[in-house]
Amino acid sequence: MELKLVREALKKGRAEKLKEDLEYVRFKNSHKGIERGTALVRDQVVWGYPHIKRIFTLEKGLSRNIPPCVMYAEEKIDGFNVRIANIKGKTYGFSRGGFLDSFVTEKSRELVPGEFFKEYPGNVLCGEMIGNTPYTSPADDFDVKLYIFDIDEGDGSYIGCDERYRILKEYGMESPPVLGKYNSDDYDELRRLARSINKGKKEGMVLKSIDRRHIVKYVTPSSDIEDISEASGQFFDISKGFFHQRILRSAFFVDDFGLDRDKYALQLGKAFHKGLTNSIRKAKKGGEIAEEFEILVKDTGIWDDIEKHMSKDIGLQVLWKRREKNRTRIRFQKVYRKTSRKLVSYAGGKAVTD
Amino acid sequence: MELKLVREALKKGRAEKLKEDLEYVRFKNSHKGIERGTALVRDQVVWGYPHIKRIFTLEKGLSRNIPPCVMYAEEKIDGFNVRIANIKGKTYGFSRGGFLDSFVTEKSRELVPGEFFKEYPGNVLCGEMIGNTPYTSPADDFDVKLYIFDIDEGDGSYIGCDERYRILKEYGMESPPVLGKYNSDDYDELRRLARSINKGKKEGMVLKSIDRRHIVKYVTPSSDIEDISEASGQFFDISKGFFHQRILRSAFFVDDFGLDRDKYALQLGKAFHKGLTNSIRKAKKGGEIAEEFEILVKDTGIWDDIEKHMSKDIGLQVLWKRREKNRTRIRFQKVYRKTSRKLVSYAGGKAVTD
Repeated sequence: MELKLVREALKKGRAEKLKEDLEYVRFKNSHKGIERGTALVRDQVVWGYPHIKRIFTLEKGLSRNIPPCVMYAEEKIDGFNVRIANIKGKTYGFSRGGFLDSFVTEKSRELVPGEFFKEYPGNVLCGEMIGNTPYTSPADDFDVKLYIFDIDEGDGSYIGCDERYRILKEYGMESPPVLGKYNSDDYDELRRLARSINKGKKEGMVLKSIDRRHIVKYVTPSSDIEDISEASGQFFDISKGFFHQRILRSAFFVDDFGLDRDKYALQLGKAFHKGLTNSIRKAKKGGEIAEEFEILVKDTGIWDDIEKHMSKDIGLQVLWKRREKNRTRIRFQKVYRKTSRKLVSYAGGKAVTD
Repeated sequence: MELKLVREALKKGRAEKLKEDLEYVRFKNSHKGIERGTALVRDQVVWGYPHIKRIFTLEKGLSRNIPPCVMYAEEKIDGFNVRIANIKGKTYGFSRGGFLDSFVTEKSRELVPGEFFKEYPGNVLCGEMIGNTPYTSPADDFDVKLYIFDIDEGDGSYIGCDERYRILKEYGMESPPVLGKYNSDDYDELRRLARSINKGKKEGMVLKSIDRRHIVKYVTPSSDIEDISEASGQFFDISKGFFHQRILRSAFFVDDFGLDRDKYALQLGKAFHKGLTNSIRKAKKGGEIAEEFEILVKDTGIWDDIEKHMSKDIGLQVLWKRREKNRTRIRFQKVYRKTSRKLVSYAGGKAVTD
């Protein structure tokens, strides 16, 4: 990366210098083709992971965005988006926003075999973490899972699909489940696939040309509605656009696939009312609206790091800590302050001007 | 009004000078206690109509906002909010935003008997117009109806309820339907009333202390959901907050009154999906998303005035004009440009970054 560009970004406030376990520059915003979330440690660049474009309708969306080719459909995983890099011989994890993340760092040192970075020192693993992370629902039957959906070659371009599957297999890492290999214009098969992942309540799919140069995502109404259901209880701490987009997409899919309209309408309405009603009832009793998370860590200093990076709109409260062998399990809750405040005041009779 | 305040508001861009049929100053924003929408014609002030506060839950909302008193419940009418004033012996109409409105002016000269302003020259009628107006659904069985929900005494304070009913009756004008007279703490009766207006698919109620000093509004989930249903087809031309608020309110009411949750969830989901699906289907055929309106006017120059004041995001197209006795009936449509553009592009396969 040109030093001039970095200086310019720093000057314009699009990048910032941070000093944590490493000294690095983080791109807070995109700048002249450099993706937001890019981190620069000395002269090593961990490129920001670009947002994958989404299509609203399968057939037209594919024909317009993916040239005729063979492509893989991978399951879209909704987790904690991370990048894992080897810096001066050590493994480090970064969040989507480009922060060095001590939680991801600790987990990736366990989950990524050291041999991988010996063989591919300049590459960056792009993955999704689920389970007991500070951002995803706690899991009972495992701690953390890491799905590597891309391997950055070190220059912001990605390794082809087959090669990635081979590498991941070799080092015992997981790719998001591969749903199949398709011709990008085999709409009949792809429609069958879309219906089946919707029925299976899966989040959606990411479609990647085999050479990994073309990529789009497509989600199901089940997952859109499920997202709304999980978020509606935190009504004022979620962006209005979050709900808006999912309502729209679910309508597109239901129409495209001729699904049972009443069934999805009922689910959609319930998704809003159920979460809201639960929160309204809590608010009526004066209670706070919160959600629980859990992490299991060796380095308890990670907790301070989480507190530091969590948005100020969210209150963090440790529920309990427990030693487990050489680790500490921390159960905590995020208190959705804005939702709590608004619902308590509305439930208490506050009148408001629109 | 102090001249100093007006000068200051003009200087700060909170007010503007306009020269149409009258020369006047319009308050674009509120300024030091002067409500947005206030119009000043020479030294005569047409005070802006303040937004009435809304409660989310009946009992607590009343006990917190209305001191123990006798109050009237009036039906909340969802129409075109107007103010009608007598200026130098002539009747003029203003829109909520404080624009002199030639459509309202023409209609109010027919609907408000001249005798009224002879007796009350300095008063301002605050009303809601429905029917064949540029902002409300066309009516078959009447042209325009005007409900006077308040009479401004000329100083921004309002005439008491009984006196208003008497005056309106005397001059043959209509109040919004009076749903009843209640003690503000007679929650049993008020709950019965709320249930009954919800069943009757009415918009809601405005509760006014008999002296008109205290006022709140309360709407029903039926009307919230009906609003969503009417607006969801114009998904991107409606503010996200419009949908957000109505989802929330419907959940509050359904919970407060122990209504059938599945029934309202289904209605809510349908309200979104039906309007959206209709618009998506139009978009798939490349069609524009539009809604029809109709007006019947003597002065055809009113059309130019409507075009001038309509938001730039909305395209106006005359569908037909027809002479009727000494008037012209104009059928026109509003094209929701943003919704049309977005839905056509998504339906055509455009991929977008969130």
